[in-house]
Amino acid sequence: MSERCDLLITNLNVATMDPSIAGGYGVIEDAAIAVTKGRIVWIGPRRDLPGCTSDHIVDGEGQWATPGLIDCHTHLVYGGHRAGEFARRLGGESYEEVARAGGGIISTVRATRSASAETLYKLAEPRLRALMAEGVTTVEIKSGYGLDLDTELKQLRTARRLAQHNPVEVVTTCLAAHALPPEYDGRAEEYIDLICEQILPAVAREQLADAVDMFCETIGFTVDQCQRVVDAAKKLDLPVKVHAEQLARTGATEMAAKVGALSVDHIEYISDADVRAMAESGTVAVLLPGAFYTLHETQVPPIEKLREAGVCMALATDLNPGSCPIASLRLMMNMGCHLFGLTPAEALAGVTRSAARALGLCCSRGVLREGLRADIVLWPMDTPDQLAYEVGALKPTKIFLGGSDVTAC
Amino acid sequence: MSERCDLLITNLNVATMDPSIAGGYGVIEDAAIAVTKGRIVWIGPRRDLPGCTSDHIVDGEGQWATPGLIDCHTHLVYGGHRAGEFARRLGGESYEEVARAGGGIISTVRATRSASAETLYKLAEPRLRALMAEGVTTVEIKSGYGLDLDTELKQLRTARRLAQHNPVEVVTTCLAAHALPPEYDGRAEEYIDLICEQILPAVAREQLADAVDMFCETIGFTVDQCQRVVDAAKKLDLPVKVHAEQLARTGATEMAAKVGALSVDHIEYISDADVRAMAESGTVAVLLPGAFYTLHETQVPPIEKLREAGVCMALATDLNPGSCPIASLRLMMNMGCHLFGLTPAEALAGVTRSAARALGLCCSRGVLREGLRADIVLWPMDTPDQLAYEVGALKPTKIFLGGSDVTAC
Ligand SMILES: [Zn+2]
Ligand SMILES: [Zn+2]
Repeated sequence: MSERCDLLITNLNVATMDPSIAGGYGVIEDAAIAVTKGRIVWIGPRRDLPGCTSDHIVDGEGQWATPGLIDCHTHLVYGGHRAGEFARRLGGESYEEVARAGGGIISTVRATRSASAETLYKLAEPRLRALMAEGVTTVEIKSGYGLDLDTELKQLRTARRLAQHNPVEVVTTCLAAHALPPEYDGRAEEYIDLICEQILPAVAREQLADAVDMFCETIGFTVDQCQRVVDAAKKLDLPVKVHAEQLARTGATEMAAKVGALSVDHIEYISDADVRAMAESGTVAVLLPGAFYTLHETQVPPIEKLREAGVCMALATDLNPGSCPIASLRLMMNMGCHLFGLTPAEALAGVTRSAARALGLCCSRGVLREGLRADIVLWPMDTPDQLAYEVGALKPTKIFLGGSDVTAC
Repeated sequence: MSERCDLLITNLNVATMDPSIAGGYGVIEDAAIAVTKGRIVWIGPRRDLPGCTSDHIVDGEGQWATPGLIDCHTHLVYGGHRAGEFARRLGGESYEEVARAGGGIISTVRATRSASAETLYKLAEPRLRALMAEGVTTVEIKSGYGLDLDTELKQLRTARRLAQHNPVEVVTTCLAAHALPPEYDGRAEEYIDLICEQILPAVAREQLADAVDMFCETIGFTVDQCQRVVDAAKKLDLPVKVHAEQLARTGATEMAAKVGALSVDHIEYISDADVRAMAESGTVAVLLPGAFYTLHETQVPPIEKLREAGVCMALATDLNPGSCPIASLRLMMNMGCHLFGLTPAEALAGVTRSAARALGLCCSRGVLREGLRADIVLWPMDTPDQLAYEVGALKPTKIFLGGSDVTAC
């Protein structure tokens, strides 16, 4: 490390989330962090800080630092809303019933297709800003409400544009295989052809997606259809992830593990063999307690088995107009504990280290360690347990994105 | 109405929550609201607005207005936090077990007694501000973590001071009968003496409380002990409310209805007879889904029976360090629907009209109507259903407190 750095943060405790440091949070007490060119160049106990100074010294005032939070599963670019369907579901209709009756995803597809790019942007930005205000520095955004070439492109371009105008890192995922568009009714294989032959290649050409996702469910696509999408993605060198076993066991997780998917998401209904397969392939389990809560589900993912098998567990909002219109990753940490039985430390790992891995970004973020991005959030708290325990009042006092102070942006 | 008013808001739709207007929300479309001296002097369809002008005209831009939200049950002034207990409860210990082991309320009592008034204020303010940012214009704050004269006074003075320095209305409640302080172990009757003979009279002398509350539960005080507190409150002309039947049926609601309590709060375990008694006495049912969620309770309050009997149902956060460290009334609207089966319109009535009634303030607020306070919130939404449906991203664009724009305060 050189004698001068761009940013020096001292007088703080750090939950590094580095698994090489003992304890769930990887704590360094009374620490210092030196940053140059957006990267952490030194982190450790303040007393060990080598001679080093900076024009930008931040006094942490004894607060706690964590890695910037990462929401690794959202659908936050969409038109319309489904407040009417919300009222109907409260009246007793299931998500599947609503979907079969032409509500559900398809009503959002109609609204997203008819919305201008400008409208989509204006609707999405407050959702993104709500996450950012909670200390989220990286957000994944999926398409999947277009289900035709133009609208899928429009959604993904909107996601990229959100990143250009907001101090946040956005990772995009093409989820063209989200639902069967009405114009392909009874012709699912032909729609898969469209995805594989036209949508994915066009998306790749414009570099609009960092990964490819698919909805492998009884009300979505079959495992065989999803395998075709996986094959097309692999040809384009795009990593894959799968919405799997949310409503029933379909074999999606088995397939996903076999092809080395980054993550399988939801997974309430996976089997013991699925857990073993995930552990062997290193596929991340993305837990989505907000959807579980909103859909009044009762089948909890097998947390204890995932934990024992050493499967990485991420937590995300699933932010979407149907099954989770909740723009709060902090609430997901709380729900992850209350509804799924995670520990507070597992919840924080789920929105940092494991979320980075679910996005294939664990080489650059999710942990505070030398060489990684200086995405750092300061919190006025006594213990990192408070991040999962409290909702609403505990807010970041400082947010650094790649070493830049973006707190007030 | 005179020809000039202090504030004129036009071009908006209004969910007045006025039950004399048909439909759950009491909607006036394309409305105008005229305000003078902090009160609504005219409200109705814009085309009917009498010749009236103002130096302060606000264009609602087609947004929706609702009454300012009211959180009618909080314990937001306290020292410390219970993140450690949160981790223990996730490990399987019940709230009662934690309480019997000296955790629970008593640990917060220790922290609140030892905190300075300044510290208490600094800890409480972010909780209050989180509610205010959601459009909450009236907040009830209870004492009950002092359990001795000095600390109860310190808590209530802190609540009053919060109101002096923040643009929000604060209603205070003395909850000295929250738990038995350790120094009175085995001498509950003597502690009730202290409450009735010293704490309540001192609180009344300093006008520090607008009501008196008590925790009538198997782990709190008996119905007979609570009756003594009620009698003392009545002598001081203070209205009463009761934490009742959260963990088991105790007869608290029956007693509360008999004495004309403003509200009974929690009431998961009330009987059919209790529901009838509440309907007859006009006692409001304050539902607290956040505590139900946090404590992993399974017994839902009898919503359908309360609805049929015509009992007023309010919704509140119960914001407190043990059973609901959640500073979000909007999340309570969402949970009221998902966990308790309220309709979105009932949820909004629960945090406006019915919450006002639970505080004895229905003559001044909770509904947008001529003569009442101009506590008005503007929301960028298509339908008021969105208020219960969405969490996180939908935020007020304007907040008026008694006719003053306090949005940016
Ligand atoms: Zn999803
Ligand atoms: Zn309470």
